[in-house]
Amino acid sequence: MDLNSDLGEGFGAWCLGDDAAMLEIVSSANLACGFHAGDPRTLLATCERAVARGVVIGAQVGYRDLPGFGRRFIDYETEDLVADLIYQIGALDGLARAAGDRVLYVKPHGALYNTVVHHEQQAAAVVDAVRRYDPDLPVLGLPGSVLLRLAEDAGLRTVREAFADRGYQADGTLVPRSSPGALLHDPAEVAERMVRLVTDRTLVAADGSVIKIEADSICVHGDSPGAVGMARAVHDGLTAAGVRISAFAGAGQ
Amino acid sequence: MDLNSDLGEGFGAWCLGDDAAMLEIVSSANLACGFHAGDPRTLLATCERAVARGVVIGAQVGYRDLPGFGRRFIDYETEDLVADLIYQIGALDGLARAAGDRVLYVKPHGALYNTVVHHEQQAAAVVDAVRRYDPDLPVLGLPGSVLLRLAEDAGLRTVREAFADRGYQADGTLVPRSSPGALLHDPAEVAERMVRLVTDRTLVAADGSVIKIEADSICVHGDSPGAVGMARAVHDGLTAAGVRISAFAGAGQ
Amino acid sequence: MDLNSDLGEGFGAWCLGDDAAMLEIVSSANLACGFHAGDPRTLLATCERAVARGVVIGAQVGYRDLPGFGRRFIDYETEDLVADLIYQIGALDGLARAAGDRVLYVKPHGALYNTVVHHEQQAAAVVDAVRRYDPDLPVLGLPGSVLLRLAEDAGLRTVREAFADRGYQADGTLVPRSSPGALLHDPAEVAERMVRLVTDRTLVAADGSVIKIEADSICVHGDSPGAVGMARAVHDGLTAAGVRISAFAGAGQ
Amino acid sequence: MDLNSDLGEGFGAWCLGDDAAMLEIVSSANLACGFHAGDPRTLLATCERAVARGVVIGAQVGYRDLPGFGRRFIDYETEDLVADLIYQIGALDGLARAAGDRVLYVKPHGALYNTVVHHEQQAAAVVDAVRRYDPDLPVLGLPGSVLLRLAEDAGLRTVREAFADRGYQADGTLVPRSSPGALLHDPAEVAERMVRLVTDRTLVAADGSVIKIEADSICVHGDSPGAVGMARAVHDGLTAAGVRISAFAGAGQ
Repeated sequence: MDLNSDLGEGFGAWCLGDDAAMLEIVSSANLACGFHAGDPRTLLATCERAVARGVVIGAQVGYRDLPGFGRRFIDYETEDLVADLIYQIGALDGLARAAGDRVLYVKPHGALYNTVVHHEQQAAAVVDAVRRYDPDLPVLGLPGSVLLRLAEDAGLRTVREAFADRGYQADGTLVPRSSPGALLHDPAEVAERMVRLVTDRTLVAADGSVIKIEADSICVHGDSPGAVGMARAVHDGLTAAGVRISAFAGAGQ
Repeated sequence: MDLNSDLGEGFGAWCLGDDAAMLEIVSSANLACGFHAGDPRTLLATCERAVARGVVIGAQVGYRDLPGFGRRFIDYETEDLVADLIYQIGALDGLARAAGDRVLYVKPHGALYNTVVHHEQQAAAVVDAVRRYDPDLPVLGLPGSVLLRLAEDAGLRTVREAFADRGYQADGTLVPRSSPGALLHDPAEVAERMVRLVTDRTLVAADGSVIKIEADSICVHGDSPGAVGMARAVHDGLTAAGVRISAFAGAGQ
Repeated sequence: MDLNSDLGEGFGAWCLGDDAAMLEIVSSANLACGFHAGDPRTLLATCERAVARGVVIGAQVGYRDLPGFGRRFIDYETEDLVADLIYQIGALDGLARAAGDRVLYVKPHGALYNTVVHHEQQAAAVVDAVRRYDPDLPVLGLPGSVLLRLAEDAGLRTVREAFADRGYQADGTLVPRSSPGALLHDPAEVAERMVRLVTDRTLVAADGSVIKIEADSICVHGDSPGAVGMARAVHDGLTAAGVRISAFAGAGQ
Repeated sequence: MDLNSDLGEGFGAWCLGDDAAMLEIVSSANLACGFHAGDPRTLLATCERAVARGVVIGAQVGYRDLPGFGRRFIDYETEDLVADLIYQIGALDGLARAAGDRVLYVKPHGALYNTVVHHEQQAAAVVDAVRRYDPDLPVLGLPGSVLLRLAEDAGLRTVREAFADRGYQADGTLVPRSSPGALLHDPAEVAERMVRLVTDRTLVAADGSVIKIEADSICVHGDSPGAVGMARAVHDGLTAAGVRISAFAGAGQ
């Protein structure tokens, strides 16, 4: 099973998260590409560290919105979004290349991630950008999203993501952040859930029912000391259960 | 002989120069990479037009300074400059790739161009960025510059540039922009000078002396209707003199 | 009657529109504030020219989106939008002050303008920003918009705007840009319409019916030579009809 | 004696320093203005907190360089620098105004601070910007700098700054950051030095000699837990020695 995390999200003098710690834990690093976060020097250094650790590099592409950290919807024209995304993938791929590797997958960030769950035009733009840049790049996204449907239709490889620290509803969707049970805080419980997810393909939903979840990668966060601890718990729990942590892309797959 | 020009220098709603006209004239297009100018959509469209016209795409990299159009010196730390340049080359290469081609050379823009004529640290950063991105990419710059010396030392291919519309001093350097004779305005005269440059490797300097100039590419401008007219005059003058206009890089070389 | 126009919309090396010509025509200049367009040097120079011509300066505030020219909707959090707007008004007011005058009204730009016609949260943010910066500043907007309703409710002075070169529907709204008749191109016809608007408070709608339009200011454009010519035609037509062109704010009101 | 500190230096999702803690300690807050750091929402909230605590607000103006945090020299044209500075002062003044106060002084940041110690053109630009915005605003800077000399010549009030945690050389200049003794780390020692500075106008230089230092304000830092602790030690040491901490500007002066 793959563990992925959003890294490279500092900018210049500003740091965010403990990337060094997370690169000891995950198999895939979703690196910011400079439009919502990530200055080139930080990104190059993070690429180098990822390569040294054998962690696969993915391009986490987002809206052009540093002040909003890519977290607010922007109503892009299609041509602008496609070109902005190709630019970001190419830029990070250049840094990855300078570090001795390549970008091996693409994941949308923040508001773009949420938007392409349902927004046909923007989801199609993501698919078009990946297809035009390199049709061999897999797309990481939410199971059931418009993005993954359109990506499959276009012949792209899709990778379904589960969230370690999020509660699920009985229908398999995430508990909204505004509702109780949206975020899970107990590392032991979260680790146990992820072991069950991997070995049994099931999770206990917020209402107590057991639901089926198909996932190819588990997203863990690293933006606080507590988050790093939980990511480590997931990693160690899976390993103890005999699950091998390895990237879905690259030599590790 | 190669004719190059700076293109793709609009940004969003703002246009600059007549790129469509220039792509009928030049063999190499130095495309902005988004840091001094060039939004991704404009750049992608310009890449597509360049590919359609058989014009070779180069990355014109610059300081991160949209408000200053890359025209003012910034005292970068080396690591920041190297990473900013790799990022730009990769980004444009991504767009070129989506358009069916690749970035085939690198040229510094504006204040960076002028700085690396003499500034060892920044010239070394440019060389390092190109070498790390792709050591097969040629570097276009001023003959006699620190940049071209360091690039050669690093084993990169160097391409020497002459300026069609600039006056030269007896020592082979450009007449400073603040002095009379810095800029030439007569298309016929400029075309004739360029024919002599190509066929005889000489130019008449501002003081009337004949100087030797070794150039592998001629830079023409396209940022005004007059500039486009002069570029066309150079193109037509060279062609009439039996000089074939073809890129120094790519299939056309 | 007041004539207003969007000016100061260049950025650094990029120019847009003929501000000098328009400052001979209008009584109120909606100056960009740096977030969708307008570098400080351009804005300061435009403020100085406006002051020299006796043209009143207004702050045309927009989304923080230079690459999109403020033309695409951004789903701001309220606190971010309020603060971004106050920042912009203050910044332009500083430049106006250095030029010997002050910002005397506020007008939203582009996608923000269109959004606050109906979007309660963002309209309230505009009202809140103006009220907190200076409750004596009038707000310029579309008659019938949520913005003007909320501004009135908050005790702000509101100024209703008509568009010289746009067609109107029978219900008093604008013909959508995608429909025929959205844009009017004949300067003589437009000038005549505006004379009728001022003297009779009526316009002929796209379907031929005569509709009542209450307007305190007429918006003219200056982003092309044709636009400047039409603006001048409106100015001259109104003057010939005995209408005095004067600002709704400041000493000229 | 005044205590000042650089605050408001986060940007969007990125935080820097513990502004809330520092606003309990200092009498003057040098707030970033958005060009090297400081998004409007953060700045507005910090203005509100400063007003609530009775801390005077100053505009810490810098180069337009978010990725470089204003720490690298940019070779501005004079007109661009003047306008950029007026824009920043006005923007922060707008937010201060919305928070119930005003900007009451100006201090250059980072590379601009260091440059105007000796650079006539940029120092003159700072003076010109302040003079044009509001000639009653004092300028905070390094004693002996070109900036303070030109500011005095222009009739501006100048405020001389000492640094609590920096070593001084026998000639009264700071020990360069690259030399041993540049930074002092012992809060008790630093507090004692500052008491001596205020009560006796002397400091012990790095070579052991006693030097005379005239200062109107002491700069303390808050960008790390250690820095906040030292700032508090300076505050408490001065207070225990009977020195009243109060701003040099505003009602507190």
